[in-house]
This record gives sequence, C-alpha cells and structure tokens, in this order.
Amino acid sequence: MKDYLKHDPWSIIEEGFHHAYNEITESVMSLGNGRMGQRGNFEEQFSGPTLQGNYVAGVYYPDKTRVGWWKNGYPEYFAKVLNATNWIGIQVDVDYETLDLSTCDVWDFRRELNMREGYLKRSFSARLKSGREVRVEAIRFCSLVDDEAGAIRYSVTPLNFDGKLTLTPFLNGDIKNRDANYDEKFWDEVHKETAYGEAYLELRTKKTGFHVLTGMKFQVFQNGQTVEFQSLPVKLEKYVANKVSLDIRQGEETTLVKYAVNLSSENHPTDELLVRAKQYVARIFRKGFDQLRSEQAQAWADKWKFMDIVIEGDVAAQQGIRFNLFQLSQTYTGEDERLNIGPKGFTGEKYGGSTYWDTEAYCLPFYLATADPKVARNLLRYRYKHLPKAIENAHKLGFKAGAALYPMVTMNGEECHNEWEITFEEIHRNGAIAYAIFDYVRATGDERYLVEYGLEVLIGIARFWTQRVNWSTEKQKYVMLGVTGPNEYENNVNNNWYTNYIACWCLEYAIQTAQRVKEIDPERYRTLRDRIHFREDKEIATARDIIENMYFPVHEDLGIFSQQDGYFDKEQTLVKDLPAGQRPLNQKWSWDRILRSPFIKQADVLQGLYFFEDRFDDATIRRNYEYYEPRTVHESSLSPCVHAILAAKLGLKEKAYEFYLRTSRLDLDDYNNDTEDGCHITSMAGTWMAVVKGFGGMRVRDGKVSFAPFCPAQWISYAFTVRHRGALLTIQCTPTEVVIENLSPQPVELLLFDKPLTVKAKGVERVSI
Amino acid sequence: MKDYLKHDPWSIIEEGFHHAYNEITESVMSLGNGRMGQRGNFEEQFSGPTLQGNYVAGVYYPDKTRVGWWKNGYPEYFAKVLNATNWIGIQVDVDYETLDLSTCDVWDFRRELNMREGYLKRSFSARLKSGREVRVEAIRFCSLVDDEAGAIRYSVTPLNFDGKLTLTPFLNGDIKNRDANYDEKFWDEVHKETAYGEAYLELRTKKTGFHVLTGMKFQVFQNGQTVEFQSLPVKLEKYVANKVSLDIRQGEETTLVKYAVNLSSENHPTDELLVRAKQYVARIFRKGFDQLRSEQAQAWADKWKFMDIVIEGDVAAQQGIRFNLFQLSQTYTGEDERLNIGPKGFTGEKYGGSTYWDTEAYCLPFYLATADPKVARNLLRYRYKHLPKAIENAHKLGFKAGAALYPMVTMNGEECHNEWEITFEEIHRNGAIAYAIFDYVRATGDERYLVEYGLEVLIGIARFWTQRVNWSTEKQKYVMLGVTGPNEYENNVNNNWYTNYIACWCLEYAIQTAQRVKEIDPERYRTLRDRIHFREDKEIATARDIIENMYFPVHEDLGIFSQQDGYFDKEQTLVKDLPAGQRPLNQKWSWDRILRSPFIKQADVLQGLYFFEDRFDDATIRRNYEYYEPRTVHESSLSPCVHAILAAKLGLKEKAYEFYLRTSRLDLDDYNNDTEDGCHITSMAGTWMAVVKGFGGMRVRDGKVSFAPFCPAQWISYAFTVRHRGALLTIQCTPTEVVIENLSPQPVELLLFDKPLTVKAKGVERVSI
Repeated sequence: MKDYLKHDPWSIIEEGFHHAYNEITESVMSLGNGRMGQRGNFEEQFSGPTLQGNYVAGVYYPDKTRVGWWKNGYPEYFAKVLNATNWIGIQVDVDYETLDLSTCDVWDFRRELNMREGYLKRSFSARLKSGREVRVEAIRFCSLVDDEAGAIRYSVTPLNFDGKLTLTPFLNGDIKNRDANYDEKFWDEVHKETAYGEAYLELRTKKTGFHVLTGMKFQVFQNGQTVEFQSLPVKLEKYVANKVSLDIRQGEETTLVKYAVNLSSENHPTDELLVRAKQYVARIFRKGFDQLRSEQAQAWADKWKFMDIVIEGDVAAQQGIRFNLFQLSQTYTGEDERLNIGPKGFTGEKYGGSTYWDTEAYCLPFYLATADPKVARNLLRYRYKHLPKAIENAHKLGFKAGAALYPMVTMNGEECHNEWEITFEEIHRNGAIAYAIFDYVRATGDERYLVEYGLEVLIGIARFWTQRVNWSTEKQKYVMLGVTGPNEYENNVNNNWYTNYIACWCLEYAIQTAQRVKEIDPERYRTLRDRIHFREDKEIATARDIIENMYFPVHEDLGIFSQQDGYFDKEQTLVKDLPAGQRPLNQKWSWDRILRSPFIKQADVLQGLYFFEDRFDDATIRRNYEYYEPRTVHESSLSPCVHAILAAKLGLKEKAYEFYLRTSRLDLDDYNNDTEDGCHITSMAGTWMAVVKGFGGMRVRDGKVSFAPFCPAQWISYAFTVRHRGALLTIQCTPTEVVIENLSPQPVELLLFDKPLTVKAKGVERVSI
Repeated sequence: MKDYLKHDPWSIIEEGFHHAYNEITESVMSLGNGRMGQRGNFEEQFSGPTLQGNYVAGVYYPDKTRVGWWKNGYPEYFAKVLNATNWIGIQVDVDYETLDLSTCDVWDFRRELNMREGYLKRSFSARLKSGREVRVEAIRFCSLVDDEAGAIRYSVTPLNFDGKLTLTPFLNGDIKNRDANYDEKFWDEVHKETAYGEAYLELRTKKTGFHVLTGMKFQVFQNGQTVEFQSLPVKLEKYVANKVSLDIRQGEETTLVKYAVNLSSENHPTDELLVRAKQYVARIFRKGFDQLRSEQAQAWADKWKFMDIVIEGDVAAQQGIRFNLFQLSQTYTGEDERLNIGPKGFTGEKYGGSTYWDTEAYCLPFYLATADPKVARNLLRYRYKHLPKAIENAHKLGFKAGAALYPMVTMNGEECHNEWEITFEEIHRNGAIAYAIFDYVRATGDERYLVEYGLEVLIGIARFWTQRVNWSTEKQKYVMLGVTGPNEYENNVNNNWYTNYIACWCLEYAIQTAQRVKEIDPERYRTLRDRIHFREDKEIATARDIIENMYFPVHEDLGIFSQQDGYFDKEQTLVKDLPAGQRPLNQKWSWDRILRSPFIKQADVLQGLYFFEDRFDDATIRRNYEYYEPRTVHESSLSPCVHAILAAKLGLKEKAYEFYLRTSRLDLDDYNNDTEDGCHITSMAGTWMAVVKGFGGMRVRDGKVSFAPFCPAQWISYAFTVRHRGALLTIQCTPTEVVIENLSPQPVELLLFDKPLTVKAKGVERVSI
C-alpha cells in the first residue's frame, strides 16, 4: 500500500515528484472521454519509468495467440487494445538541452487530476544540467463535448536566464505495446503531412486495417500575446512534428497551446479521414482553449449531477468514491453500442482492453442507476450484436442448433482467451449476460427490449445450457461436468452450484420471456420463432425437465450449498489462519496448491445468493455467508463488493464497511502493487454498488425502487443520487436519519425499509432511523 | 496409413523416390548409436521437404518457456534436444550444376535401412537440368564401436558425359531447431579450421555452454584407386568445408569416403576437444571404411543375439518388431547413466528429446530382459542422481522435508513441462519411478541397489505422497485431490484410482524396503537415516495410517474401480458408437468436450491392474477390462501394449493380437500421420512387451522367470530371446508347441504355464500346448 497522493474531495494530487511511482501516477491520472483515452504521461521527454498509453476506443489488434501447448478450440488471436499515436508530445529544448525530468533537479512539482472539471494539470520547476532553471505549467484534457479531441496548454518560463527555447509539438506513431506476444509493432504508416503550425499522421493497424488519423494544430503565446513563429517541419518514420524556436527572457512565460484530434475509420469513411481531421482541428482551434475548457467543466458538472456520492466526515473515502465514479465515466459514456468497458479502461494495456462478464455482472447496475437507460441498453445491444459469433463459438466447441456461448474475453464477439479451464469452462458468463437482460428490464420496465433483442439472446443461451448438462444415471439427475465457477481458484469441477443454479435460472427466464413476448407481440414472436427454428414445445419441455431434475450439491448437516462436488473433501482451513507472508496466494503459492486448497478467489456461491437473494431466506444466506466468507481471499477486485452487499443485508455493518474499504481506494493507494499496469475500472462499479446497494440498500422490486440505508459509523453522512424510471432521487443518510430528495418534476413512489413512501415532485422526505 | 515401404524381414526399403513422404522416410531411416544420432537426410543438397536432424546425446538448450498465462510454479525453460552440426553433408556439383533430387529427374532410386548390420544405403540415377546424368551410391552408419563417429561412402558415376565433378564435404553448424519457441538459433561458433582433406568446427550452445566439436577427414577414390586431390578450404559462419574438383569420365566411379566425429564437452575436457577430435578422426581414418563397417555388422549381430524376435509367417510383423527393437537399441545403449530415452530418440525434435515416465513404465522391462542389468541400473541411477532436483521441485510447489516430486519432462532433473494440469498434477509419474526400482530388483535380485540408492529415492517419493493426500472429514478417509491420471483426457480430478493406488503401494514398498535395508546393511541404513533425517517411527506410522485409510473410488454395482470421483456421472457412451469422422478425438473435438466425455486416452485403471496384477483376481481384472476397454481411444501410443498384455492374460487372444498390431508398424505405416516428426521410440518398448509379456506371458515371480505363451492365429510361430539373471533363453512358440532353449552354460529353473520346468545348460525343452 502506498499513501503519497494527497487527500482532497475533488482532486487527486501529487505534491513533489515521485519518480519511482511515476507509472502508478500515470495510471491514476489517466484521462478519457469514452472515445479516446490517455495515461498521465508527460508531454515533454521523460527517460524515467513510464508506460506510454494513448488509446482509441474500438481500435484493436489481433495479436497471435501464444500458448505452451495448443488445444483444440483455442482462439487464433488475443485482441489487444492498441497503444496509438502519442498526440500529447511536446519536446522542450532550452538552448539545445532537452528538458527531461529524469535528468533534472525538480522542485515545486505538483500534478493534479481535477475530477470535478475533468482535466490534468501539472507544474514544476526544474534545473537542467547546464544550470538553467525553468518553470513549467501544463494543463490538458480529453474533451467530453468534442469527443475526438484533446487540448493542451503548455507554458515555459525561464527562471534564471535569457536564451533560446525550442518547442517541438509532435505526433509519434512509432510506438509499441508493452503487452505484445511476439514483440511486434502493430501499426503501419499511411500518410503524414505538415503545414505551418499543424501536422497530420495517418496510421493503419496491421491485420485489422483500422485507420487512425491524428491531427494537431498549435499556437504560441508570449506574455499572453500571440506570437508569429517560424516552424520547421520534421518527418520521420511514423512521426511528424513542427519545430518552433523562440527567444525567451528570464521571468517571461512562453505558452504553446496544442489542439489534437484522433479520428478513426470506425467513425469516419477512411478516405475522408484527412479532410475531416483538418476540419475538426480547425473547429476546435477556433473555439480556443478557454472555451473548450469551460465546456468540459460544464459537461462534467452534468455528469456529476446524476451520479455523485457525497461523503461527510471522511475525505479519503470521499476522494476514493469520486475517483471510481470519475474513471468509470471516462471509460464508457454509453453513446456507442459497439464499445464496452475494458477492465483497465483507457488506463493501461492489461487484459487487452477487452470485454469480460464484469460488464454485465458488475458495471451494468451503475449505469442503470446513474445514466440514461439507453446507456445500459447499448451495453445489452453490444451482446445482442455478438450473438452470431457466440453461436459460432459454441459450434466450434461442438454445440449445435443455435446454442450460444458468449466469449470470456472479446473485442468483436470472438473469443480471445486461451486457458482451457477458462475459455471452455468458465461458462457461467453466459448466465451473467442473461441476468443483465433481466436486470435491465427490472430496472427500466422496457419490455420492448425483450421483444426486439432479448428473447433471441435468451434462447441462444438456453440452448447452450440444455446441451451442456447431461443425465447422470448414477445420480438420476442432470449434472454439469467440467466447469470453472466465478471462483477461478477451482478449475474443471463438477456441479459448481452457482453455474448449475444460474443455468436453471436462465432456462426459467427464457421460458418466461418467450411466453411474455408471445403475449405482448405475437407477430414478432412468430417471426423470431421461425427465423431461429425455435421448436417451442420441445425446447420448453426439455428446459422444464432440466429445471426440475437438476442436481445441486449441498451439505445437509451444515445447511449450505456446496461450491461444487467434492468441496468438502478439502482440508477446511480458514483465511485468518494463513500466515500473512503467504498472501496473496496467487503470488505465493503454486497453482496446484491453490487448486487443492479451500480458498476462494471471489464470491461464488455468494455471487448466486447476491443475484437471486429474493429466492432464499435470510437464514440460508447467512449460513452460506458465514461458511464461505472466512474461506475467501478476495484476490479478485470484484469480490469484496458482493460481500459488502450481502453483509449489509445481513446487518453486518462493520463487515460491510470493511469490504467497501478494500476497493474504494484500491488504485489510489495501490493496494495490490499493480496500479502501474492501469486502474481496476470494472471493479470501480463494484465500489459504487457497495455504497448504493450495500449501505443504501437500493433494490428494484416490482417496478419500484427501494432503499434500506444505514450510515457507516466512521462517517457523518453520505448521499447518493440515482435515477429510476425518469425520476432523479438523492438519498442522504446520517446515523439517525434518511433524507430523500426527489429532484424530478413528478412524485415518486418508493419503498423505504420495505414501507411505501411517496416523495412529491421536487419534494423532500425525512425519516428517522 | 501409408504403405510405400517394402516388406522385408531385416530391412526397411524405399523403392522409387517418394518425394512428398521424404520427412517420414527420414524419420524411419534414422541412425543412432546411443551417443549421437541422425535422421535419414541426404548428404547432398535437397530443396524438397526435409527435417534436418543431427543430435548429440546429452546436449540440450533451455528454450525459454512459452505460455499464454503464467502460473506460479511453471518452469523457466523447456529443455530441447538440439539439432547440431550437420556432419553428413557433401555438396555435389556437376560442371557447376548442383545435384538436388528435388530439381532432377530421378530413377532407380532405392533407400535401405539395413537393421541387421546397422547402416543406411541409398542409390539413384538422376538427370540434371542440363541433361547430364549421374548414378550415385551412398552408404553410411553411426558406429556402435566408435560411438562418437560416423562414416559415409559416397560414389558418383557420370552416365552420359565427361566433365568436372566438384565434391564439397562440409560441416554446417548454421542450423536451427524447427521446434524453437522464439525462433532463435541455439549455437555460437567457437572455432573452425581446415587442413588438407580435413576440417573441424567447434560450437557452443547458448546458455547451457555445451561444446560440440565436429571433425571430418576424407579421402577420394576413382575407379577404386586413391586419388590425390586439390582441396580448397571454405569458411563461412559456423560452416567449414573443403572443395575438391575432379575430372570425371563417363562410366567411371568417383568415391568420397568421409569420416566424422562429434565430441562433446559432456565427455571430454573442453580444452582438449580439438586435439582429441583430430586423434579420433585420424584413428577411424586409419581403420578405414571397410573395417569400420565390418565392426559395425559384428556389433549389431551381438545386439540381435540378445534381443531378436523371430516371427514366421508374417513378414510385415517381422519387419515391424525388428524395426522397434532396432530403433530402441539405437537410442539407448545403457552405457552412460547421464542419458535416457527421449520419446523420439534421435529421430526428431518433438517432445524435446527429454525424459518422461515412459522410461520407467514402458522401456525398462525391455532393457531388463534383453540387456546387461547395468543398462537398467543406469536408467535407475539417472533418477537417483536427479533426486536433489526432485526434492527442489516439490519444494517449489510447497512440499517440505525432503518430499520428492520427479518432473514430468526433464533433461537434467529440472521440470520442463508447462501445462499446470500435467506439470503439477500428473504426479503418478512418481509412482512409476518407485515401481521401476521394484521391477529392477524383482528381475535382477540386486538388493544392493536398494541399499545404495533405491531406499533414498523411495523415501523421497513416500514423503511426497504423505503430504499430497489430505484427510477428508466428509469421507473419514484420506483423499488425493487435484490430479491428472495416466488418462490425460481427464484433468484435475479427485481420487484417481490409479494414483491413489500407486501412492499407497509406494508407501508400502518404501516401508518394506526400509526394513529390508535395515536388515541387510544396518550401518548404511543408519547413515542414510541420519543424513536425510528419516524419522523412522513417525514417518512409517503416518504412511501406515494412510495405507489403511486411503479412499478408493469404486462402483459397487458394477464391481469395478472408478477411474476417479464422478466418472460415472458422465454419459456412458462407447468408442464403437463414435462416428469414424470424429476420431482421433484430440484432433476433432474441443478440449472441454474431450474432458467431459467418458473416453480414455490410455490405460488408467488398467495400468494399475497391469502393474499390480498379482494383487487382483482375474474376475476383477476382467470386469474392469471389460468396462474400460470399450471406452478407451488409445490416442497415446503407450496404451495398446498394456491392453495387449491384459487381454492375453485374460485369454482374449484375438484382442491381444489386435492391440499388438496397433503399435508394431505405427511408424513404418505412419498410422497417426505424424512420423515425419520422428518415430515413437518409447512406445516401441511397449510393442516388445506386447509380444514378450503378452503373447509370451513372461513374468518374474519369486526370482524365477515364468512364461505362458500362445501363438497368434495369424502366425506360424514366433520366438523371442530374453535374459534372466545370467541366463539366456529363447522361447519359440507355435500353435501347438513351446520350445525353450537355454543358451547359457548353466541350467535354468523356470515356470511354464505356472509349472516348474528346468532347462539344462545349452538344453532344449519342448512342451505341447
């Protein structure tokens, strides 16, 4: 754990340059706008530790799969988000000496990620080897309003000399992914050009053939006045720049403002990229830096209005939760149904920037409750559009007749992951994709989605489960063999309770949805039925038979579900008895030892009880929670949130708070020593859930939103804002009172502690607790 | 299946050049002498399909591990046998046109691997593009007598022209492994030199630093007369040659005899390699080709005397079995305890040339029965010397106090394999290593081996098993979780019957051996006990407790052992009901489908019944055989032999013959479409077992050798020769009679069909059946 970032409610602040931690700070201070993103790299040269990262949403490279031993069914490639052209670069030379914070004396260094307004600001003083001292101030952002653009204002003031300053704003596409299987470069150059004060560089990805055109235009000011400058064009391989040399005087500030755009062939016709980039750059150049920045501040204010969580009495917690909300919002804006939420967002390369079940199981509730329903709908549509690939994927593994297995990791619907125990066996992901449809319809009431898209996906998934189980003559039950549950510290197990349960639930929900769609739109139903050859009676009968005769492993004496067959054959040691030096297990123990142990990576049985809590009584949930929680090491960042929600439900407030703490500052304090690779974006949604569903007890039941809040003892109060079917509500909770403010122009009926409560339009209700 | 090689009792013959099959023929026609080996590559240039292969025993490269996703405990490298300097090369230029069979018209082509005398002979006529026609005859061998040397006689006769012939005998070390994880070259050049008619090239492996010095000396004859020649030295990177130009006349033969040596730093001081190579080359040059060849013929005759199997009435079967014996004998001669038997021997790169449990489970019986006991003893000593590494390996996985886990794949005792389900879980290999000690002592009576080495290994292995099991409070038994049995089509299963059984047997045998060693050499026993901190009472008590309370999965109704927990939950389909197009499963089915199926890759429960047949009644063996065999796809070449032996034991003669057929011509007929990668050397020993232990019913019981032969209906007779404790016996079997000839100068007491029989010195016994 590290504690070098300053606590502040709205900003992440580094004071004094932490050279060794630079890659961590770069991750934390990443900027993004859903369309492009950028790690907190320096504009000027830096020879110290840095992971360069510029990402363009939807642009990936199918990196050839690397395995030790090939197994049938492995995918050919792993899609990787690409480090793209560096558009922030400005080389700074002072009398022919290059500014590089790794080789200077640095003081008064300050770096701030301002989350309220969405910018990154940096200032420092530096003494170069020659003794020349400069003061630098830089500020930049990725525009939410013009979401293919970014802008930088970079100022240099000589502190103890007069001389020459050369500023070289550049676009550099001669970059690599650190995470490349065979150390290849992924881009080819297509075109480059420069003109006075501007430059353009077009690259194309190998194999996938995505084009990205990066353009820049800049202006220079001295003492606040525009300066006419000489600009020397520089062209190298995949690199284009303009070199500007200026005379500078001690104490006088020179400022370069750089406007850049990243246009991808995903969003523009390839042959118009150049002309559009020129128009785009010209347009934001005309707006100017100050206007862009004030638009940015307004756009962020609008976002915060719908999602902010305010914590009184704990600045670290306040900063932590806002950081999570900010990074989530930078990653996915929900405007493009082709995009999704990579586990690292735009903050690093790890996990390839691809889509995991994290989206459906952990992120969807955040967007459902804080954004326009179309955002969640787009996340669902993403999977709908991948249905043909999911069917193809299942077919490749030997399934028939329209069975769909969604991939574990994907960019375009094709499977990328290549560990058999996950790729082929961690099939519960299919359940989460069905659950997301249910979750969406429950929250929004949008049954049309079922008619248009949902049912088709549900039938594909149901077909998979009916083929994936088999009848055991031994048990006289259906069994599901050879799976990996959410707890990836078990592989290739039989009858994982969670997987068996969600499989049956999927079958039920598919049947129920088929009947519902048939009711509300019989014509669309028939069209779909015929198109996908849905043999209604037979398929439903088969599904019912499985639902009725599925085997669920239990431990009768303990009155709990068994995580899988044979779980109780393990030596039942507890996490608290593990010597501290042996954790995290995934770094300290060999894989076989982990597999043989009873220790659980992340909620598994409990994940099921969380999803389907209404189907189990509290005593059952408590017994399972009390058995499994002490065996869970939470070595997935997705685990604590589920435990926080269940603990809150069971009245274990201290426990709930403890679990919340494990994720809220995970990246800010670099708990797991891995923030340098990027931030844990998808688990940030879990942190939101721990507050809103955990402390706030938010649920949606029968179309009504419901709350049961309590205030953690460590806080004075907290408040969160959620949307529900057109209403906007702020729930504030202190140790003694819940205050519900209805910000919307119509009354809202809700449940508070299971009792009906109507909050009138623009009204406030206060309830003592 | 292919059938292009001519049937012959003593030779493998290709008539007419099968260009497309060349890599297969190269594999089949590999030569070796235990110290070096060589695929059947051409001496002259060949631009068609070829896998160059020259191997020097014990010389390997630690190729950096390639995995998709790293898991704790994976080894850093995979040791690879190296393609070493090509010493056979002779470039042939006819009036400046290079001879290359891929670009000529070829006729009268014949290639013969003569197994009786151990040489490879090739002849052909070729018309070059210019129309010039030549006749070539080439013969070469790797000397058994001078086992670091090889010799080639290469003759060229112009058929329709007078002209210039340039012969360039070369040594080329600028070679690659086809099987390189990152496409690197593994050798650096150390030294090269040429002199009149000779040349030397010294290379060093990267990382491991093995030196191999290859030397050659040659002479030229025309029309049988030595020719003085001009020799032009050629030196390129890792390449050295002498170019000899000669005038040739139509119909007159020019012959180059090339003598070559491969000296490795494993066998010679590095700084003496050059001088020793020169001496070695000079020595064999003085012997001359004819003497070397006649020594070779004699050495092979001596080998055949002790191991031949003669089959009457089936030339294909005769050729098949001799091919197996020949290749096994070329691979491992037993003279060097640092060497072992790679699955491909010297016939290809696949499986890295490393040591697997194949050696102990399948190859040892062959060497025990056909070679001096020191050969088998050296195989055992190989593992004894690796004991410290096996302890280190277990320690790395979390085991303590001297527990030893032998590697799945190794060159120097360190684990190389990197699939967790095999590396960490296919631990039954430890059992085979203990079983080999038992097998050796049973066959030889050499209890001193136990005193000196065996017990220490057995204690290390026993310590592993005692830590690897755990007490299940659920079952009130010891269980063994997370293993992969011999059937690799199941991974990470619980309570694999075979593994549980052999684990208990290891504990028993270790206890029994400790007691025996204590009796026969109490002093050595005490010394060992103190050195390895063997806490006799406690460790034996623990082992006894495990033996008495181990859990063995069974199916009570069927009266059979369960391959593992949950096996009977699978859909119990049979191999015979699989559509033909779906096999082999490992090429047609996804890995998860294979894992979920009931299909068995190779004998698993049956492997245990084969090892421990005396502990089970025939009815039990039969029930298990009848249940598991129809579910076994035999997709390991090691499977049929075990089934052949059990089938023979159960009187299922036709079945036994069928299983025998599956392996005896596996490579000759390229059944599995993979002979081009090399031959299945270790499974060749299984073929021998199918005949001798299967048809011949050979066993050793209570120090006596025992037979129960029958003659397959397809044969007139067969005969095999075995050694037993100093005696040499030939057993001939016809449908009606068994003839046992005692070739040794002392009488032999044996069992025939369980009845005692004494065969007097040099005597013959005939028994009707």
